[in-house]
Amino acid sequence: MSIRKHALKIRCLGLALFIIVSVASSQQKNSLSDQIEKYQNIAQRLLEQGLRELPSYSILEKITSVGHRLPGSPGAAAAVELTRQIMMEMGLKNVHLEPTTVPHWVRGPEEEALMISSVLGDHALSTAAIGGSAATHEDGLSAQVIEVKDFSELERLKESAAGKIIFFNVKMEPGTLNTFSAYGKAAAYRVRGAVEAAKRGAAFALVRSPTTANDDFPHTGMMSYEPGIPKIPAACISTQGADLLSRSLKLDPDLRLFIRFHCQNLPPVRSYNVIGDLPGYEKPEEIILLGGHLDSWDLSPGAHDDGAGCAHALSALYLIKALDLRPKRTIRAVMFMNEEFGGSGGCDYAVSDKRANEKHILAVESDRGGFLPLGIGINADDPTLNWMQKWMPIFQSIQIHWIRKGGGGVDIAPLAEQGTVLGGLIPDSQRYFDVHHSGRDTLDAVHPRELELGTIALSLLAYIVSEEGLGPHMK
Amino acid sequence: MSIRKHALKIRCLGLALFIIVSVASSQQKNSLSDQIEKYQNIAQRLLEQGLRELPSYSILEKITSVGHRLPGSPGAAAAVELTRQIMMEMGLKNVHLEPTTVPHWVRGPEEEALMISSVLGDHALSTAAIGGSAATHEDGLSAQVIEVKDFSELERLKESAAGKIIFFNVKMEPGTLNTFSAYGKAAAYRVRGAVEAAKRGAAFALVRSPTTANDDFPHTGMMSYEPGIPKIPAACISTQGADLLSRSLKLDPDLRLFIRFHCQNLPPVRSYNVIGDLPGYEKPEEIILLGGHLDSWDLSPGAHDDGAGCAHALSALYLIKALDLRPKRTIRAVMFMNEEFGGSGGCDYAVSDKRANEKHILAVESDRGGFLPLGIGINADDPTLNWMQKWMPIFQSIQIHWIRKGGGGVDIAPLAEQGTVLGGLIPDSQRYFDVHHSGRDTLDAVHPRELELGTIALSLLAYIVSEEGLGPHMK
Repeated sequence: MSIRKHALKIRCLGLALFIIVSVASSQQKNSLSDQIEKYQNIAQRLLEQGLRELPSYSILEKITSVGHRLPGSPGAAAAVELTRQIMMEMGLKNVHLEPTTVPHWVRGPEEEALMISSVLGDHALSTAAIGGSAATHEDGLSAQVIEVKDFSELERLKESAAGKIIFFNVKMEPGTLNTFSAYGKAAAYRVRGAVEAAKRGAAFALVRSPTTANDDFPHTGMMSYEPGIPKIPAACISTQGADLLSRSLKLDPDLRLFIRFHCQNLPPVRSYNVIGDLPGYEKPEEIILLGGHLDSWDLSPGAHDDGAGCAHALSALYLIKALDLRPKRTIRAVMFMNEEFGGSGGCDYAVSDKRANEKHILAVESDRGGFLPLGIGINADDPTLNWMQKWMPIFQSIQIHWIRKGGGGVDIAPLAEQGTVLGGLIPDSQRYFDVHHSGRDTLDAVHPRELELGTIALSLLAYIVSEEGLGPHMK
Repeated sequence: MSIRKHALKIRCLGLALFIIVSVASSQQKNSLSDQIEKYQNIAQRLLEQGLRELPSYSILEKITSVGHRLPGSPGAAAAVELTRQIMMEMGLKNVHLEPTTVPHWVRGPEEEALMISSVLGDHALSTAAIGGSAATHEDGLSAQVIEVKDFSELERLKESAAGKIIFFNVKMEPGTLNTFSAYGKAAAYRVRGAVEAAKRGAAFALVRSPTTANDDFPHTGMMSYEPGIPKIPAACISTQGADLLSRSLKLDPDLRLFIRFHCQNLPPVRSYNVIGDLPGYEKPEEIILLGGHLDSWDLSPGAHDDGAGCAHALSALYLIKALDLRPKRTIRAVMFMNEEFGGSGGCDYAVSDKRANEKHILAVESDRGGFLPLGIGINADDPTLNWMQKWMPIFQSIQIHWIRKGGGGVDIAPLAEQGTVLGGLIPDSQRYFDVHHSGRDTLDAVHPRELELGTIALSLLAYIVSEEGLGPHMK
């Protein structure tokens, strides 16, 4: 072969290779843009169906109609049966309950906090026992109040705390944009206040509600006790009540607070997670889980926390079915029981024998309220996350601004051990802690369109992952 | 020079050039990242100051306290004086009023719409005259009702429309994500309904309120008459009223509606735009304008429309001042008068002699409510827009998701002719038309943190442009 011929051959080979690579890359590009167009059409249909029909709000109306759903309560039991029936009516498959044992704390018939001052007169404060709190003596307790701004101030009180009511007047920081982060810091006093006060010999822990709302609603939530530390009772008061008490203490440091709570810790109760599937026609054992938690606190019907999350998950499956979209992989709705009082539902779900032949590739929880969705958090490695982000044009068309590392939830966390990728819907959080765990978390605090946009985002996410898998290695 | 030396020289030159370009580009990079860091610090301070103090909500409380601010009304006059005083108290410079003549329409003492049916009995409908409407006869009018779904259905009625009440029962499309676009289509019947009905000889135009809210609040707004077409009166009814009337017409097509309106078009009134500056220390004649409109409709104190926009503009200057930031260019707040009834304030502002030595480089209006801000629209050419977008990391730190082509507003539109770049704050629009132009547009419909985040975004935008100019050609 002459050198010239050889050179020509190389050039031809090069050209052929160039053409192959070009065609392949342009095919890939076309295929991606075709896929995006396909899913954008589906997104548009989900959007129209959802916003016209508002199925999430109808479901949320039903869920909140049973009242509060504290673990172990009749309301929680009613919600289990209600959502089972909703799943049956929707035509989901494999609808069943899975048992979980839940603590059973009840608030009791009356809760009383009365500020008694010879200088200022008496004044009742709106109050609520913190979840899991011990009761006061049947006749209540009366003691002086010491206000502290943090745990270190409590530390410095030494013996003077003995027999007193420790008043943790710690404001949830309003200057933080991420309200969940500000909440976490303030709620630490609700969670650990009783233990830390008891270590100093105090009789009661009184906590400013962790919210930036300026109103008269106390916000309850979880608290912890520790072995070997006296279990003193604990309650929260509203932000307005806390401000009043703080001002009053400045005018009359000797004022006393009379407090009476009849809450009780009863024996645990059997309850259930509620599960229903849209079975995958090609890989039914591979599961995309959408979840919320059925239980709520007991001061309201928990419309945002987490009626909204349950409505999101149920309605996402409803929308996919309404559009006659048959998913390749199974899309499952799980109504978890007992997120608020220890997370037993999520733990029991993950370790159930029923999981033996299932592979959960993605689990997404909605437990941040039913406000305007802003983004989607996916706790995956970078290649998977990058792969997810190529679908952003589709999500942008339904006004989801970003897909970022993050997300997850108490109920789905135990699935991470099995290699499930966790995710979460991230709605706007500016209004969430106004209502969270308080009497304000009612249906009228939820906007039907905002709620539905969350459902639409979740249905789109679940459907795309059911078709395309999760990451470059799957299909 | 030998060829070799020549080649060496070229290589050296190349290397030198490479080093120069690299250094320059890395300096440029450093300088950009330094700038971003600098403005991110400022953004963080604006965020903390704003969210802790919530000045926008305080200002909005004051503005809404004067009641409605229909052009020509005592409330509008009070708002002019109130915002002038707020500007003075804030220490703004060049605080002054600029006159504008506004129409003076008043709703009158009573508005009545009574459905009269021998089959169904009588039923009152919540109603409100459309802005600018003629009155009915003093004793009211009573006529049969013909429901139409669009203008073409009206067209087909021919003579049968004569003397009737034409009921435009056109739903605002709920399946559209962009509510402004859905509103625009539905509001066309409010704007042109009377003219089109009058062309067919009808006696009255009755319009379903352009909102997706399901409630009993009528939403008013602007309408037009045309020379040579009889000026028949027009009113809107609530969505629930429209549904009731539509169902009733199916059961009793002969039902009559009795309607009485005593609205009046009075002689025009002199009113004012209110203006105040943070003067630029380097280029005081170059102006960044932040604006809202002081006037509102008369069914509520216009908290979102556009009390929120006024609060945004005023508080943005307040925050910049509170942080002791002295701007290079002048940042100006303008409270425009009469956006709702013809836009005379914006027109008069643009052509005032006072503009002679001023150059408005950017004018931004907030007139889409005080809901969670999502993005910023800038109606600039691509190079300017690209240049703006390099600041996105700063805006993302305050949760502004995008800067896109778009924005503007009725009041600032006349400035475009002078080469001013127009922009707008784009908040979430899902809840806006629930309250817009109705009795629901009250202070409690505004969330203090959502409102403040809009202010923070505008203050940051105005400050960056005051320092950096607008686009690659300025500084």
